[in-house]
Amino acid sequence: MRALVGVDWGTSSLRAARLGAGGEVLEERSSARGILSVPAGGFPAVLQETCGDWLGGDALCLVSGMAGSRQGWQEAPYCACPAGFAEVARSLTWITPGRIALVPGLSCEERGLPDVMRGEEVQVFGALGRLGLQDGTFVLPGTHSKWVEVQDARVRSFSTYMTGETYALLRQHSILARTLPAGDGAAPDEEAFTRGVREAQAAGSLLRSAFGVRTLALFERAAPAALASYLSGLVIGEELRARAPLPREVVLVGSPALTARYALALRTLAWDSRSIGSEATWHGLWALARTLETP
Amino acid sequence: MRALVGVDWGTSSLRAARLGAGGEVLEERSSARGILSVPAGGFPAVLQETCGDWLGGDALCLVSGMAGSRQGWQEAPYCACPAGFAEVARSLTWITPGRIALVPGLSCEERGLPDVMRGEEVQVFGALGRLGLQDGTFVLPGTHSKWVEVQDARVRSFSTYMTGETYALLRQHSILARTLPAGDGAAPDEEAFTRGVREAQAAGSLLRSAFGVRTLALFERAAPAALASYLSGLVIGEELRARAPLPREVVLVGSPALTARYALALRTLAWDSRSIGSEATWHGLWALARTLETP
Repeated sequence: MRALVGVDWGTSSLRAARLGAGGEVLEERSSARGILSVPAGGFPAVLQETCGDWLGGDALCLVSGMAGSRQGWQEAPYCACPAGFAEVARSLTWITPGRIALVPGLSCEERGLPDVMRGEEVQVFGALGRLGLQDGTFVLPGTHSKWVEVQDARVRSFSTYMTGETYALLRQHSILARTLPAGDGAAPDEEAFTRGVREAQAAGSLLRSAFGVRTLALFERAAPAALASYLSGLVIGEELRARAPLPREVVLVGSPALTARYALALRTLAWDSRSIGSEATWHGLWALARTLETP
Repeated sequence: MRALVGVDWGTSSLRAARLGAGGEVLEERSSARGILSVPAGGFPAVLQETCGDWLGGDALCLVSGMAGSRQGWQEAPYCACPAGFAEVARSLTWITPGRIALVPGLSCEERGLPDVMRGEEVQVFGALGRLGLQDGTFVLPGTHSKWVEVQDARVRSFSTYMTGETYALLRQHSILARTLPAGDGAAPDEEAFTRGVREAQAAGSLLRSAFGVRTLALFERAAPAALASYLSGLVIGEELRARAPLPREVVLVGSPALTARYALALRTLAWDSRSIGSEATWHGLWALARTLETP
């Protein structure tokens, strides 16, 4: 197999890895050159700066994430669900034929409403390979959390939850910001967090539960430091409430800090999970490259 | 009955009315001197500027709203639910004994979480009097919507929904702001609004439904102008979803534009409502003054 360079080009950051024949990471680099920082036409130069030294010879470079969006390098049209490796491999948008390609995101539709993702599908494919799974429910927590249903190694459907963004809005811009300490500084308060997760189930809507952050502060029933954890529990708990009843087990894909927080929320509600890091991206891009070489 | 001056002193505005013996409004004034614009110690002067000419003789002045909060004129401790006219009248905080009083807000508690309101309780009391009711579910839509349960003319319990504030956060500060036109300009799009109300019931959480505003724009399935109405329907629909099943009828108290929007959302879900304007405040303060005079 020829040299493979994987690039995960997101909104606010850029990660690249040189991968070995077995998918192992030989070298990894990251920078803050997310697509929002790249001027129109500037994508080839940023890629060269980041990992031009890896792109010699007949190296193959696969780029996933928001680089394939309308605001990115070039629009890579979404691949419609259900979609697996084969469909995604057929739908690559080649920048330099045979050498540099953008991996398309996926789209699906429910009740006449489209949903989309870019990059998370590669992480899911990577998690499938790493964990030896063909089926499952995969959760990719973040600004916009994705819940992905996989059957026979193909993404059947998925849903987006604006969880991380909603937390940030309430934390920074709402009336609750007045009673919350600036910055997350301290370690999360597990007791306050799990209380929030449970309250989310009882309240039935974040519109209702969120005001409790203010009144707990008003009546001095909770320390300001605990309130940020409580709010985090309310918001993540709301995501879980909306998904209930959950499948037997979910697979969490993401950074250790975030998957640990979701695992705790799931445990609070007596649900099982296992976690895999976002290096799943590299395994997914490697598996995709293998699909390309074995038609 | 002696002269009565009612004052509704909120966070961002101040309204005052001179009331007749039967509760009729003889004269009304309003200004932008909400409590946030008044420096510490400045409240007596602002009241004098606004309606000092009404306060001569033995006039009684009752002030409701955020003027009784910790950030206001003086903290008027909350009156605990269940509470009716009698409890509120007994709990007035007198600024000038027998002449100027702050009406306390109400507090209640559910699952160990306090909830509070200031000013809305007077509107509910006024609505009870105006509509000749002793019982009912009263909804006061707004930045923080209040759902108030009344039995035997006493507030038994209530809940706060951060509906208006959440709409503003999503509208102005979230990723959705990028696809929504600035300013609400055009009249609401009723079809888009009711579609949002229905989708809120199906989606089960605003965390899930809100992202549809982005994807509808991305796939050019809805005009930008319609999307703001769709989002409004999602948010108000979420409030109603969280309350379901609703009682036979709810009484909406508030401005005509807002109560009309809620009435449409309720109708979309086949629920009945009737509406009363926020002048209910004056009737509530007048009824409270009458309670003071007939011990």
